[in-house]
Amino acid sequence: MGAEGIREASINYAPGYSENLAELLLIKAGIIGATGYTGIELLRLLAPRADVEICAITSRELEGVPVQAHFPNLRGHLDLQFSAPDSGALSQCDVVFYATPHGVAMHTVPGLLGAGVRIIDLSADFRIKDIALWEQWYKTSHSCPELVAKAVYGLPEVNRAQIKQAELVAVPGCYPTAIQLGFLPLLEQNLVVSERLIADAKSGVSGAGRKAVEDYLLCEATESIKAYSVAGHRHHPEICQGLNLVSGSPVRLTFIPHLVPMIRGILATLYAPVKSGLSVTIEQLQSIFEDRYANEPFVDVLPQGVLPATRDVKGSNKCEISITYSKDTDTIVVLSAEDNLVKGASGQAVQNMNIMFGLEETAGLQGIALLP
Amino acid sequence: MGAEGIREASINYAPGYSENLAELLLIKAGIIGATGYTGIELLRLLAPRADVEICAITSRELEGVPVQAHFPNLRGHLDLQFSAPDSGALSQCDVVFYATPHGVAMHTVPGLLGAGVRIIDLSADFRIKDIALWEQWYKTSHSCPELVAKAVYGLPEVNRAQIKQAELVAVPGCYPTAIQLGFLPLLEQNLVVSERLIADAKSGVSGAGRKAVEDYLLCEATESIKAYSVAGHRHHPEICQGLNLVSGSPVRLTFIPHLVPMIRGILATLYAPVKSGLSVTIEQLQSIFEDRYANEPFVDVLPQGVLPATRDVKGSNKCEISITYSKDTDTIVVLSAEDNLVKGASGQAVQNMNIMFGLEETAGLQGIALLP
Amino acid sequence: MGAEGIREASINYAPGYSENLAELLLIKAGIIGATGYTGIELLRLLAPRADVEICAITSRELEGVPVQAHFPNLRGHLDLQFSAPDSGALSQCDVVFYATPHGVAMHTVPGLLGAGVRIIDLSADFRIKDIALWEQWYKTSHSCPELVAKAVYGLPEVNRAQIKQAELVAVPGCYPTAIQLGFLPLLEQNLVVSERLIADAKSGVSGAGRKAVEDYLLCEATESIKAYSVAGHRHHPEICQGLNLVSGSPVRLTFIPHLVPMIRGILATLYAPVKSGLSVTIEQLQSIFEDRYANEPFVDVLPQGVLPATRDVKGSNKCEISITYSKDTDTIVVLSAEDNLVKGASGQAVQNMNIMFGLEETAGLQGIALLP
Amino acid sequence: MGAEGIREASINYAPGYSENLAELLLIKAGIIGATGYTGIELLRLLAPRADVEICAITSRELEGVPVQAHFPNLRGHLDLQFSAPDSGALSQCDVVFYATPHGVAMHTVPGLLGAGVRIIDLSADFRIKDIALWEQWYKTSHSCPELVAKAVYGLPEVNRAQIKQAELVAVPGCYPTAIQLGFLPLLEQNLVVSERLIADAKSGVSGAGRKAVEDYLLCEATESIKAYSVAGHRHHPEICQGLNLVSGSPVRLTFIPHLVPMIRGILATLYAPVKSGLSVTIEQLQSIFEDRYANEPFVDVLPQGVLPATRDVKGSNKCEISITYSKDTDTIVVLSAEDNLVKGASGQAVQNMNIMFGLEETAGLQGIALLP
Repeated sequence: MGAEGIREASINYAPGYSENLAELLLIKAGIIGATGYTGIELLRLLAPRADVEICAITSRELEGVPVQAHFPNLRGHLDLQFSAPDSGALSQCDVVFYATPHGVAMHTVPGLLGAGVRIIDLSADFRIKDIALWEQWYKTSHSCPELVAKAVYGLPEVNRAQIKQAELVAVPGCYPTAIQLGFLPLLEQNLVVSERLIADAKSGVSGAGRKAVEDYLLCEATESIKAYSVAGHRHHPEICQGLNLVSGSPVRLTFIPHLVPMIRGILATLYAPVKSGLSVTIEQLQSIFEDRYANEPFVDVLPQGVLPATRDVKGSNKCEISITYSKDTDTIVVLSAEDNLVKGASGQAVQNMNIMFGLEETAGLQGIALLP
Repeated sequence: MGAEGIREASINYAPGYSENLAELLLIKAGIIGATGYTGIELLRLLAPRADVEICAITSRELEGVPVQAHFPNLRGHLDLQFSAPDSGALSQCDVVFYATPHGVAMHTVPGLLGAGVRIIDLSADFRIKDIALWEQWYKTSHSCPELVAKAVYGLPEVNRAQIKQAELVAVPGCYPTAIQLGFLPLLEQNLVVSERLIADAKSGVSGAGRKAVEDYLLCEATESIKAYSVAGHRHHPEICQGLNLVSGSPVRLTFIPHLVPMIRGILATLYAPVKSGLSVTIEQLQSIFEDRYANEPFVDVLPQGVLPATRDVKGSNKCEISITYSKDTDTIVVLSAEDNLVKGASGQAVQNMNIMFGLEETAGLQGIALLP
Repeated sequence: MGAEGIREASINYAPGYSENLAELLLIKAGIIGATGYTGIELLRLLAPRADVEICAITSRELEGVPVQAHFPNLRGHLDLQFSAPDSGALSQCDVVFYATPHGVAMHTVPGLLGAGVRIIDLSADFRIKDIALWEQWYKTSHSCPELVAKAVYGLPEVNRAQIKQAELVAVPGCYPTAIQLGFLPLLEQNLVVSERLIADAKSGVSGAGRKAVEDYLLCEATESIKAYSVAGHRHHPEICQGLNLVSGSPVRLTFIPHLVPMIRGILATLYAPVKSGLSVTIEQLQSIFEDRYANEPFVDVLPQGVLPATRDVKGSNKCEISITYSKDTDTIVVLSAEDNLVKGASGQAVQNMNIMFGLEETAGLQGIALLP
Repeated sequence: MGAEGIREASINYAPGYSENLAELLLIKAGIIGATGYTGIELLRLLAPRADVEICAITSRELEGVPVQAHFPNLRGHLDLQFSAPDSGALSQCDVVFYATPHGVAMHTVPGLLGAGVRIIDLSADFRIKDIALWEQWYKTSHSCPELVAKAVYGLPEVNRAQIKQAELVAVPGCYPTAIQLGFLPLLEQNLVVSERLIADAKSGVSGAGRKAVEDYLLCEATESIKAYSVAGHRHHPEICQGLNLVSGSPVRLTFIPHLVPMIRGILATLYAPVKSGLSVTIEQLQSIFEDRYANEPFVDVLPQGVLPATRDVKGSNKCEISITYSKDTDTIVVLSAEDNLVKGASGQAVQNMNIMFGLEETAGLQGIALLP
């Protein structure tokens, strides 16, 4: 059975969602490329769920290996082996997650969609609507540009309604999630000079994935901080695309990512000059953010004076935001913190799945951050 | 209502434990001294549970402060303020956890027991049966030695039956848990020279608690490893007491703890010479451990050749064990890894609570380790 | 003998500085409050020198304790005990370093100056010329405001000539050093909108000193990043004072410091919009920085495309700078990296001493960064 | 000029070593394979020296690249490019260091020796006298077994006289240095049961080298500790070979290495049961160690009660040792700490060079540990 049946069911029954029906709604999920950090995080979030059955985890090089041999934290939690991507098991799923490097999903997504499988792609393949721009940044030609237009950008705080109906969701990148959530209220309210935005973002090393690359060795990356990709990062066009959709004037963004000696977490420090002629107070700004995210289960606007630390959201699906304003410089500073592997990737992917299948949006995502 | 009613209920109904009854069994829990790392970890484990109501969290200096202001990871998960220890709320609880420094619990435990409250003490006050020995190590006189005899040492893998009935449980220390679980099968089977045991243990810094002490500053503790308390550590008598209970001959243990530059985790590397005249094989040893822990939900004997790392159990209640044997030296090496704040403290406390109240022993403790 | 004799000698003989004279120039140095990180770093830099004799290291609470018992890395390198601050030994020195908390030096500096001792103060007591502003930020009244006017701000790249003659040097703070060195060329050349400067600065935890404060425990500070003091940091007025001295128009600076989970290092990411109407190229900018620092032994302008990492300067006195410019946003981004304890504190203090006493400016400061 | 001339000169003149002669003694040094951590550490130690000229640094893949482009900490300290290993420059050197993986040096050492070049090999190629044993552990056949017999094992605390005359020095491994220095006095004095030695060793990640291997990524190695190679580590035969040379009875050693989440440092915790019938006191043991190492510039026997931490020797060439003894278990515990890249590799290599060329043994090796 593909997704159609399930979706119909969920659309019909979700409003009167009852315990009995929940048992009927057993979502069959597949994961492609689940050997990296977003893959293992998907498994951590999905394995305990009673309403999701993980049917297939594919990896060409690990075919036949028990998943828990590769991911020792899953010992006793998941009795499944890696299978080959072309085993046919994927087309039996209701939903398939792509936790693959960029440029992989586009080759097999059309086939799975044709088989009625709904797709949640954690890679960048379907995030950017401007195909030429995507091809410039990802240095390959897109194999199914027509699907890009149909794909829904999976930022629930913006696109919840479309996600509900989507067959193909492009999960936002880690930086784009933190940065867009921080800037959106300011741009929606037309408060800041959109041509002068700055995002100084700091990421833990897991953002680089589980690749055996010298730069990410402990001895290279710990006890140090550096900026990277200052001449241009692939998340830049994705962020601008999202911000331009709500901004009254064109967005120009200086985006400088930094590598921080820790495993998880992104902190984005966002700077926006207030529009000339406007007069704002910190109380107004605080209200604007609180109102904007009042009904968002995973965006937590902190009280004035409380600042986020990435450890406060480690392992959780929350994005914590705090707002500061200085009259002296007339600049608004927004701090936005998330776990790059959860709200910045796999948690958000699961949040999308919950929305798509009419489940409680917070199902399986209410884990408390591991502190300390 | 004190513990008696609940206990009766649980004893009666647990075998036929049904969803409806589960709702009746709402355990009212209090936590004393919940401002440190074992306290916050108790809250992380208990707050999400539907069958436990956290009624009181006491802290003299934080009275009136919302718990989530002190522990930012709990924002949105727990709507409660710290209260004064003497507020009376504690005696209304079914169970009270002490997450206090050593020497505190003994002063108020008698009163709460008298009020029918069952006690789970994470401190050392009731762990050591030999009062004189306790007083020597903890450098104070014991205020209720008569209760020490009644206290049950809360190592479920040894004392499950007694824990079920206990009114006062002394939760084992972090080192004692990892070390006893690693040595027990060898001593029970009388395989090793009990006078020549060595435990070389490595602990993350959270084992030192959340005290503002210079030695545990990041700049003092990171990027370094050292041994400490080599002339004698307070966990030494506790470990020996437990091992002696199962050993056919007196235990003599060299115990050297080390401070490792990480937050969580204990790895105990245990060395035991095989008894002269005995001939063992690694296959036998592997079987002995697997059999010993076959029904233990939280002791995971790894397959031959797989070694534990503390990150594999970070945030989980598991103790992972692997066994190595070298014929050349006739020495058995056991590796035992746990999260010192979970199986080494708060998780084990909750495991005890589950047993005491007739719940599923694994309830609320099946979280998957956060990896990476 | 006080500083006068030495200074005269150095002024006379430095140009023809010969090996024989070097032996005559044995500088007698004292250190007040040498129990923290800037103190230990001063000792690491000064102890090996043949031309400096460390005569007194004072600490009221450690009086009589051998320095190497407190600082184990100095075992075998320094045979000296801590003495009381009022022992009289300090007034026999040629130079005294203050490695004390803010508000301490001002009380005893006048006396030592009167005894002919030259002073190098690593604290903030003499950095800010506007006494009222200083008192507002340091929350105490200044006990010798008249000396503030006479004090020389010890940034050699700006004040080398005055430092040479100075009797009292105020060593810049760690953030101010990295940030001023990064902005100075842009402001001197009048290239940027001085009212719209942003400094997003990231510091290792040693910047907080060796204080037993909960926030800086390993378990609180590692595996996390956060901003702090967003409403105003005490280094803000110091930075603005320095920048305003060279800027053609008033400086307004948004300064957001962050705490990074590592011991040493500051990375300042500096954002400056190009003045409207000006047209700049990255080649021009690169030249401006290279020219500005061509003769500076401790400012290293990196080639285009090479970015600094704090580990590249760990333990060294260098400040590494790289410049980026994006036409799209018309914003210049300068990255400035230093070891906060060396170029940001003790190394810079020694550099000042070298200048004051007519020694080679680089003497004792050419250690290579410890990498990895 | 090869080594012969220099050696002769140094033997003749070293006793009357004067400043003038020092200038004559300019040692021409080459480094093969200097792209890893022992290579960079050699450069950090050699680049500042006036008596050593680094003539060639070879790397096939980096030929033509400036060394300081690859090692940013060397910017401004070393003006040299990587050259091809076969450029001929090496045979012009007085001494050549091999910082290559195991199995490389043996192929070209014979040629360089023939050209009169003295060799200091940091790899394992010439450490183990038993060729069959070496071939078993390093899984290749030895290409010049006849040279193994002539090679001197470069542990100055044992072989100083032979090192002085050596043409080929095999620098000990990192674990072997720390462990042998800790056990030697006990075995030399025949105090312990040599068949029951245990070495529980903990190493920072730099011990694994600068290889892009998944296991050593920051996200895999930080915040965790684990044992590895428990079934046998290649340093085991090397350690036993050295210990057997001084032991009155055969050595049997249980050696368990562990990976610690830090860059540098080895701490070896050594356990040795006292021989039955012997009676020892801690005072005797302390004296035995202090006497044994009284004249050793780089072995520091700590006072009773002071324990080593690896950070106390970070970047320095010291091995710090402390001794503990418990009458209860009759077991001696020795703690031995070093920086694996310095005393455990490159510093020890330089110490050997100093001895070989008649220089001060401590020349260039008196850097103070970087603390914090």
